[in-house]
Amino acid sequence: MRSCPEMAPELGITLPGDSAADNTGETDLSKSKFSQTLQKTVPSSAHETQVAMDDTPVDLEKNGPALRAQHPVLNPPRPPGLWDDLKTTVGEVFLSHEKRFRFLVKEPMSGTISILGSFFPILVWGRNYTIAKFKSDLLAGLTLASLCIPQSIGYATLAKLDPQYGLYTSVVPPLIYAFMGTSREIAIGPVAVVSLLLSAMVQKLEDPVANPIAYTRLALTVTFFAGIFEAAFGFLRLGFLVDFLSHAAIVGFMAGAAIVIGLQQLKGLLGLTHFTVKTDIISVLEVILKSAPKSWSPYNFILGSSFLTFLLITRFLGKRNRKIFWLPAIAPLISVILSTLIVFLTRADEHGVKIVKHIKGGLNPSSVHQLQFDGPHASEVVKIGLIVAVIALTEAIAVGRSFASLKGYHIDGNKDMVAMGFMNIVGSLTSCYAATGSFSRSAVNFSAGCETVMSNIVMAITVALSLELFTRLLYYTPIAILASIILSALPGLIDLNEAYRIWKVDKLDFLACIGAFFGVLFVSVEIGLLVAVIISFAKILLNAIQPGIEALGRFPGTDVFCEVNQYPMAIKTPGILTIRIKSALLCFANANFVKERIIKWVDEKGDDEDCTKGNAEGRSRPKLVILDMSSLMNIDTSGIASLEELQKKLMLHGTQLAIANPRWQVIDKLRLANFVNKTGGRIFLTVGEAMDAFL
Amino acid sequence: MRSCPEMAPELGITLPGDSAADNTGETDLSKSKFSQTLQKTVPSSAHETQVAMDDTPVDLEKNGPALRAQHPVLNPPRPPGLWDDLKTTVGEVFLSHEKRFRFLVKEPMSGTISILGSFFPILVWGRNYTIAKFKSDLLAGLTLASLCIPQSIGYATLAKLDPQYGLYTSVVPPLIYAFMGTSREIAIGPVAVVSLLLSAMVQKLEDPVANPIAYTRLALTVTFFAGIFEAAFGFLRLGFLVDFLSHAAIVGFMAGAAIVIGLQQLKGLLGLTHFTVKTDIISVLEVILKSAPKSWSPYNFILGSSFLTFLLITRFLGKRNRKIFWLPAIAPLISVILSTLIVFLTRADEHGVKIVKHIKGGLNPSSVHQLQFDGPHASEVVKIGLIVAVIALTEAIAVGRSFASLKGYHIDGNKDMVAMGFMNIVGSLTSCYAATGSFSRSAVNFSAGCETVMSNIVMAITVALSLELFTRLLYYTPIAILASIILSALPGLIDLNEAYRIWKVDKLDFLACIGAFFGVLFVSVEIGLLVAVIISFAKILLNAIQPGIEALGRFPGTDVFCEVNQYPMAIKTPGILTIRIKSALLCFANANFVKERIIKWVDEKGDDEDCTKGNAEGRSRPKLVILDMSSLMNIDTSGIASLEELQKKLMLHGTQLAIANPRWQVIDKLRLANFVNKTGGRIFLTVGEAMDAFL
Repeated sequence: MRSCPEMAPELGITLPGDSAADNTGETDLSKSKFSQTLQKTVPSSAHETQVAMDDTPVDLEKNGPALRAQHPVLNPPRPPGLWDDLKTTVGEVFLSHEKRFRFLVKEPMSGTISILGSFFPILVWGRNYTIAKFKSDLLAGLTLASLCIPQSIGYATLAKLDPQYGLYTSVVPPLIYAFMGTSREIAIGPVAVVSLLLSAMVQKLEDPVANPIAYTRLALTVTFFAGIFEAAFGFLRLGFLVDFLSHAAIVGFMAGAAIVIGLQQLKGLLGLTHFTVKTDIISVLEVILKSAPKSWSPYNFILGSSFLTFLLITRFLGKRNRKIFWLPAIAPLISVILSTLIVFLTRADEHGVKIVKHIKGGLNPSSVHQLQFDGPHASEVVKIGLIVAVIALTEAIAVGRSFASLKGYHIDGNKDMVAMGFMNIVGSLTSCYAATGSFSRSAVNFSAGCETVMSNIVMAITVALSLELFTRLLYYTPIAILASIILSALPGLIDLNEAYRIWKVDKLDFLACIGAFFGVLFVSVEIGLLVAVIISFAKILLNAIQPGIEALGRFPGTDVFCEVNQYPMAIKTPGILTIRIKSALLCFANANFVKERIIKWVDEKGDDEDCTKGNAEGRSRPKLVILDMSSLMNIDTSGIASLEELQKKLMLHGTQLAIANPRWQVIDKLRLANFVNKTGGRIFLTVGEAMDAFL
Repeated sequence: MRSCPEMAPELGITLPGDSAADNTGETDLSKSKFSQTLQKTVPSSAHETQVAMDDTPVDLEKNGPALRAQHPVLNPPRPPGLWDDLKTTVGEVFLSHEKRFRFLVKEPMSGTISILGSFFPILVWGRNYTIAKFKSDLLAGLTLASLCIPQSIGYATLAKLDPQYGLYTSVVPPLIYAFMGTSREIAIGPVAVVSLLLSAMVQKLEDPVANPIAYTRLALTVTFFAGIFEAAFGFLRLGFLVDFLSHAAIVGFMAGAAIVIGLQQLKGLLGLTHFTVKTDIISVLEVILKSAPKSWSPYNFILGSSFLTFLLITRFLGKRNRKIFWLPAIAPLISVILSTLIVFLTRADEHGVKIVKHIKGGLNPSSVHQLQFDGPHASEVVKIGLIVAVIALTEAIAVGRSFASLKGYHIDGNKDMVAMGFMNIVGSLTSCYAATGSFSRSAVNFSAGCETVMSNIVMAITVALSLELFTRLLYYTPIAILASIILSALPGLIDLNEAYRIWKVDKLDFLACIGAFFGVLFVSVEIGLLVAVIISFAKILLNAIQPGIEALGRFPGTDVFCEVNQYPMAIKTPGILTIRIKSALLCFANANFVKERIIKWVDEKGDDEDCTKGNAEGRSRPKLVILDMSSLMNIDTSGIASLEELQKKLMLHGTQLAIANPRWQVIDKLRLANFVNKTGGRIFLTVGEAMDAFL
């Protein structure tokens, strides 16, 4: 396709790497000071890394800039290849496990303790646990339980499961996390967004109203797979996968999910019997408005909204005055007790107020036989498990990190993921659905002054006791109250300030945020997530391949060359056009564009719009184009071809091309592609040296 | 989520931009030398671009490095935002059209001529056209026609259309291109890959055997839309979209397509009646082996393969000796004439040799009424049109560019796309299917010494004459010969040398190449393309967000800091850890990873693996970490949050953080996010200045 006539290399130095690459694809091997140094720096297994150089050691201090500029620039050691990178990464994952194992073999006694301690951090911090700490944790745990019981029942209805499943989920997972996790403030249990996500996706496979048993089985199986994925992410140190949902996307997603959850609660608040399985705002509003007002129940609404007002007022007061943080924390429990009493005394359930009715009492039953690994939905269930795992981890890690950062300690993301995984695996065997760290309850836990994760144990025991003793008392609890408890927790998920800050700092980030928001709101939860991920990655792509170039000038009084737009005081050198490529990659997607732009700039005699100094000399055709490649991390075959064409076109009009500061990967590929020999291009360490060599 | 206690800024300089951002989101306005300079450099409409600075002009030459380092670094002009970039891009697209229009209004006479000339380059070069040139073009055109007639018929059968459609496509599109295009050597007509692509995708909608009329209508409609897309790409200057198929992907795709096309020809070569609509190698081989050998026809095979041998030998000879380039060019026509005579004389068609039979004579009929814009397949047809347009343009632009580069002239990609678009739109109205520039015929055209695109006109007229006069003579042409003509052209599509070169230079590029190859071969043409595009973009993503950091050292005898692995002679400064972030973006996908890595390096007291000099001082905990941000083109909210956390964690252990050389977008976002005030971080122009300030 491209046949470039081979040009005699203008450089005096022969490039063995260049010519050898043509013959055998390998570089000559010759011992030198540098190649020996190199063998220390690059893993020795990294293929033929020896550098082709003269045998005589070169004194770089004494020799002039020309030699300095070309010798080491053109003859760097070979960078580690794709294979080496892969080996290093995999090695890092298994090294830590292997080290531990070796230690175990050497010293079985202390090795076992050390391993147990690393899997169960409670064994480490438990040794220094004091009565004083326990007092704080007891108080925090009880406060947590008072908030957790009504919320758990509410979130179970959001997940379209029987109310007791919410309580089950607040018993086993917190206990397991308490033994294995590293965060001290996180409050484990069911959360709104994961409950919504689970029900939104599982009810497409099985109808929760028509077929509740099959639905529950699927929900538990999804929980099992979510646990498997979480544990696997932690064990394989893939914690970074959680970062793939950008902060902006999470802000948008959470806000959208909050509104969707709120809409779902209208069913309970209005006492509707028929509702839609879709979650988008259009479908939900359609159902509600179509049913209006004949099937709206005024009693449900009045009861629900008056308690919602109460909850919101306590929330507001708690925010105004940090000392009464416990008021919003226990307000839900007060609401439940009060409203249950009201309904019981007035027998309002006979006048259309919907009530919870029977909640199965007793501790978590086994659900081992409910897991379903075959059947028509197997692959779907695994997929939902993955999505639930990612969202659950994202929320938990965000919660854990923010509180750890407040108290100044470090949480081990990978260890925490393993803990989350185990708690969900064991949970799925004991009738729990997907649990994670809750934003709102962790904040209450923190405010209540918890010292360790012991508060979770206190909470779990309290919930377990309630399951044994008090479920009968919840018979008359109105569903509208559960809806209002969920509704009152939603404002915490909508962070307008953060959205505004994102808008201010980065418009494209805001696009991901708003995309996730509208995706969740108008289509579905999964689509919202997908939109967010796609916009986030599209943004990275756009940034990586933006076909931009920028003019450089000398910073007054220094040898530093910088962008003239960023530093208006920078001075251009007449007759020389210094250009920096703005993107990190010169590849198929932008190489041609960059080439055309450079040629256009050169043809326009310097550059019209950017030549702010407007000196007349700058307007004649430049004699030299210096291409500063310091931004360029990599180049591909299309990029190299473009550079070759650029060099040829510039030569046609008598303009020379010099390349400054090529990075390791770039210079290596240019050598492999025989670029220097083909074009006679000049390559220098810095822009300044390229300029000096020309002048 | 993150609440960082506001730290008093350590810097002596107040940063109005920082504090103002907190209050109103706008920066103070104060006139200064720099803000005036700025107004020239950035479009004046670019929101509030004034820089907040002291009123007194600062003499940068006289003041010390500290001021130099901080004043301009911390107070750059605002970079153009997303909106400005968009405006500039859109402006560039329409400016050229608008300029032309204004010129037309001012000087209607010369304006019209200039516009006509720019749309029809033939009006420009036609003025200098000479008899000598015409002689060359006439010879080239006739050679071209002799190759084109048999190939066109063959490609039409590959596209599952009647043979005359191939001939039609060699009449109208070349004529239109000749008037509008800018390449001189390109030979326009049907090509193998586009024919395959068209039939592979359209036959999923309509069966070409059971329902040939509906199939033809769809094929013509696809051609129409392909033309619309091509013209739109050209008019909107979206030529760069063609670059989105990386060179490596094209190499793999072409090779895969060649084998798939070859497999399709086995039907003709073996004289099979039943065949599969699938194109993957497994399905095709299955059909062939299942039918073997009972329905294989020996006469077809013997006839086809003997002429294939003849064609391949002429091809080989033509390659060995460039002087007899005409031999492979006219060999197909010779084969057609000879084989037709043989069949006619021996009446071999009565013994099972499949023949072309009736070819409808006469020039292109109108097909305006055959286009079908409604119906069940409308959206599918548009999609296929887009894919065909991209592949057709990719091939044509590659052909055009490579020959233009050989002769040293410039082809206007956008103008050529408009020409291709028009030729396909008009083609679809005159019974032509998708045409583009053919690799093999353009090479023949070039070798035959064509001077201008006039050779295409000669070829089109010759084909038109054949359509009028000679179609009846092709009645007895055996189909096996058409198959062997197509087969003989395929080796040119497989470029093993280039594949090897790609493997040598870039392993990931090779992965895209091989992915496209296997995708086409084992699944389908579209999947092959999709795989290639996905791998290519995944590679960009990987490169852009690689969470790498590298240690820097001072290049001996200079102020330049460079990577110690790339330049083993670089010297680290004891007690100071200088780190460069390797990726172009510090964003949600890698920010956390980069932060953790830096903290790990610092915790490991310098850095074990990279501290090649092994000096003892380097092993004590560094007092200062200098983060060289020169590679970083952009940063997002997650990236800023990571930097804030990094700064806090380093401070805990008494290590200071300094940032060197932040780029325009980066420093702007750090300012907007109030980073400097929050962390008291120090920001410098270069690593050297950061180091001097510390020492």
